[in-house]
Amino acid sequence: MTTFSNSRQVRIEWGDCDPAGIVFYPRYFGIFDASTAALFERALGMTKIEQLKHFDFAGYALVRTRAMFIRPTRFGDDVMVDSKITFGRSSFDIEHRLSHDDHLCVECSEKRVWVVRDETGRLKPHPVPDNVRDRFEH
Amino acid sequence: MTTFSNSRQVRIEWGDCDPAGIVFYPRYFGIFDASTAALFERALGMTKIEQLKHFDFAGYALVRTRAMFIRPTRFGDDVMVDSKITFGRSSFDIEHRLSHDDHLCVECSEKRVWVVRDETGRLKPHPVPDNVRDRFEH
Amino acid sequence: MTTFSNSRQVRIEWGDCDPAGIVFYPRYFGIFDASTAALFERALGMTKIEQLKHFDFAGYALVRTRAMFIRPTRFGDDVMVDSKITFGRSSFDIEHRLSHDDHLCVECSEKRVWVVRDETGRLKPHPVPDNVRDRFEH
Amino acid sequence: MTTFSNSRQVRIEWGDCDPAGIVFYPRYFGIFDASTAALFERALGMTKIEQLKHFDFAGYALVRTRAMFIRPTRFGDDVMVDSKITFGRSSFDIEHRLSHDDHLCVECSEKRVWVVRDETGRLKPHPVPDNVRDRFEH
Repeated sequence: MTTFSNSRQVRIEWGDCDPAGIVFYPRYFGIFDASTAALFERALGMTKIEQLKHFDFAGYALVRTRAMFIRPTRFGDDVMVDSKITFGRSSFDIEHRLSHDDHLCVECSEKRVWVVRDETGRLKPHPVPDNVRDRFEH
Repeated sequence: MTTFSNSRQVRIEWGDCDPAGIVFYPRYFGIFDASTAALFERALGMTKIEQLKHFDFAGYALVRTRAMFIRPTRFGDDVMVDSKITFGRSSFDIEHRLSHDDHLCVECSEKRVWVVRDETGRLKPHPVPDNVRDRFEH
Repeated sequence: MTTFSNSRQVRIEWGDCDPAGIVFYPRYFGIFDASTAALFERALGMTKIEQLKHFDFAGYALVRTRAMFIRPTRFGDDVMVDSKITFGRSSFDIEHRLSHDDHLCVECSEKRVWVVRDETGRLKPHPVPDNVRDRFEH
Repeated sequence: MTTFSNSRQVRIEWGDCDPAGIVFYPRYFGIFDASTAALFERALGMTKIEQLKHFDFAGYALVRTRAMFIRPTRFGDDVMVDSKITFGRSSFDIEHRLSHDDHLCVECSEKRVWVVRDETGRLKPHPVPDNVRDRFEH
């Protein structure tokens, strides 16, 4: 089983927060989506726009996500997002752990599939190509 | 057990969509958060800003959320969001079903708690006041 | 000179607001972008996704925007956005006036151009087709 | 006349972009708002949440903004934002220049005022305190 991980720091901004002064939770999913992209960028050695050209696919579509909100974060917080991917046969699972000052704040797990466009332009799942999976094995 | 439901129509906008031409999924959570607010607004007969003054609380904090993404939606789609709340002792569960042309597109379930500010200004859970729950029973 | 106008009501949501309890101003531009799309939808009788197919173009690209912020708005406010378009030779100007309870809150003026993709896929300005302009004249 | 500048790099993310594959322009204003906060953070040596406590004010409210969109940016682009502030008597002007690979992409100028809350909780402009302005003079 292939796993691979990546970490990145994110600054929580004023505009990410709501009138309670804490992150408006949909923003966390924006952070996690960018963390998934960063994980692929690190493994594949190219940005997502380059990946889309190189591997001729349409993205890593989300099938389901779950998140637990343990502690709020606030504007000015520099949070750490640790992301880990595990490949199944045709889908892959990503776990994100967002922490601040070593306190776990949010835990999220995503199931995604590699998607391509069929001849009519519609998105459909496709097994992750071997040359993509191989890059996650170093 | 108290349950209450509400439905509202939402237009998916160009700016809600990503380079794949479909909704960028964090926006769905923004839609669901507004649907939860609409549910409370309908039951309580006042907007959230009025609720915050009237009930002296700080919001309905999200403890966890789960979502399944079944079919994509696109800009220009007028989607229907059907939301249903069920009250437990100190928390409450909300189910959102987002559909387009009678096809279910996204299913989401949230657990939330009523939160108040303690004397230091920190958010903490508090049982849902009886006069709030009562309003959901008509 | 062709002018055309449209109005729509928008609910300001909790998630549109920042820790000061008022709209985070970038959200206004999301509202204005959707108002521009609504203006075209009303004049052309089709949604933007249908327009893109029907007129074979890539969007109404923003060249510049200016906005004045006169009064803040808050979550729960139902604001009115009045939008007016005026066509020049190759560009068009849109004025948005966002008001709440008949008080003007934000004024915005945009200059946009009709864009198409050239053979390399890059966006480039193109005169607004006559059959588009004509629709704004009824 | 006091001026002060700051630069920061920002990654354009997939979720910042629209179906045309380029940045959805309201996101630029989110980037500029964070750049203004970064400018104050650098000059004052504390984050915005610390500033709000230390200086007992409610933010730097936007009075007007103007932006020119010269070249589009795309997801995966690491853009540079150079921001410069100039203080007037009671307001201040901030210029942001966002560039990619040394090409200017967006130019923005903002007028902002220092705001405090009056006894009723409403936001009102207030001259920038001298001990704030002084920090911008080193």
